[in-house]
Amino acid sequence: MIRACIFDVFGTVVDWHTSVSRDLAEFAAARDVTGVDWVEFAEEWRKLYNPAMEAVRSGRRDWTVLDVLHREGLVTLLDRYDLDRFDEGEIDTMNRAWHRLDPWPDAVPGLLRLKTRYVIAPCSNGNIALIVNMAKRAGLPWDVVLGAEPARAYKPDPEAYLASCRMLDLAPADVLMVAAHNADLAAAHACGLQTAFVPRPTERDVVADPDADLSADDFEDLASKLDC
Amino acid sequence: MIRACIFDVFGTVVDWHTSVSRDLAEFAAARDVTGVDWVEFAEEWRKLYNPAMEAVRSGRRDWTVLDVLHREGLVTLLDRYDLDRFDEGEIDTMNRAWHRLDPWPDAVPGLLRLKTRYVIAPCSNGNIALIVNMAKRAGLPWDVVLGAEPARAYKPDPEAYLASCRMLDLAPADVLMVAAHNADLAAAHACGLQTAFVPRPTERDVVADPDADLSADDFEDLASKLDC
Repeated sequence: MIRACIFDVFGTVVDWHTSVSRDLAEFAAARDVTGVDWVEFAEEWRKLYNPAMEAVRSGRRDWTVLDVLHREGLVTLLDRYDLDRFDEGEIDTMNRAWHRLDPWPDAVPGLLRLKTRYVIAPCSNGNIALIVNMAKRAGLPWDVVLGAEPARAYKPDPEAYLASCRMLDLAPADVLMVAAHNADLAAAHACGLQTAFVPRPTERDVVADPDADLSADDFEDLASKLDC
Repeated sequence: MIRACIFDVFGTVVDWHTSVSRDLAEFAAARDVTGVDWVEFAEEWRKLYNPAMEAVRSGRRDWTVLDVLHREGLVTLLDRYDLDRFDEGEIDTMNRAWHRLDPWPDAVPGLLRLKTRYVIAPCSNGNIALIVNMAKRAGLPWDVVLGAEPARAYKPDPEAYLASCRMLDLAPADVLMVAAHNADLAAAHACGLQTAFVPRPTERDVVADPDADLSADDFEDLASKLDC
């Protein structure tokens, strides 16, 4: 008896690979910065994401939102690439590339259908401001923003999933976690949530693990499978 | 430069007086419970609200969501009214009367206009499940649910307002607090937020305090005054 669908965002709802590299490339081109492979830069930036969250997950660092972790990673990378011409305001603007990610084409129509029957919410490691700004720009019709910041825990820490269920006053078994990443779904499954896999062309996992309760081609297919 | 509008909910967005008493009266009538003045009962229930939150605000009690405080107050009142025929499930259903509050007629059209230009969010003492269930039923088009539960602080504690701004990554001066209660607006003003007063026929305050930045007849008028 599913009452709410919660979603991984980076990769699952939006295509961060294309959006971040294009955003940075446009920003650099407008300032005559040349000679940087911004696709590689975006991938390198993302590689700093998990170690930064791990410092928080492990307790070595107090709760810190993703915008701050992203910005620290960006400063590290700009230094590594010998890009020292951007001022603090420009670095802030580059960092907010993560607020300007484009949704996969089926995401908005699929979410609008799912919203007619279920509570729909992001369960992302992105902080609230990031998710809200992204949603306003892209038209993502969330009912509420759940995930890392309200939970003060980064996925795959169980608390990120369990706090999201608790904040909806729902049992984990009544909540469906949707992601393009099997590791995310496995962590949700271990917490008692139902899980749905949706493949995305830029993401590593191409088929659902056998443990997933559902697999759908995209969000429109997911809406059909959930009778919306 | 307003970027977000955040709203008191009980009284300002929804008419809790009429909705709670009618919900309880219908529930009782369906079970042949007679002889209770449910308007008075709703008012008595609400009187237990502030003392319950004060236990949390003062630190005498750990963070506890409003659904739990409401339910404790309901049990107290049922006892005081010698109403001992409801089982635990029925008490849960009665308690969720607060999830089924009707919006003032201008609330949804006004919010839809405001949403085109601003981030709109509740900044209520209601917990997330309560606010989400209310919004799904009433069609309140929030971008995100802020307020007491994400902040883990009850208004008028400054942290309830300041955490809401911080979660949007906005300075308090860029956020407009909207309420039918001058005390709520005064607390927000003290935190540096802008404030807008909207009178509601069931609420005690009938005119804005001079400190309010804006006063509007209703949410449609507010939308017009904010160029939506």
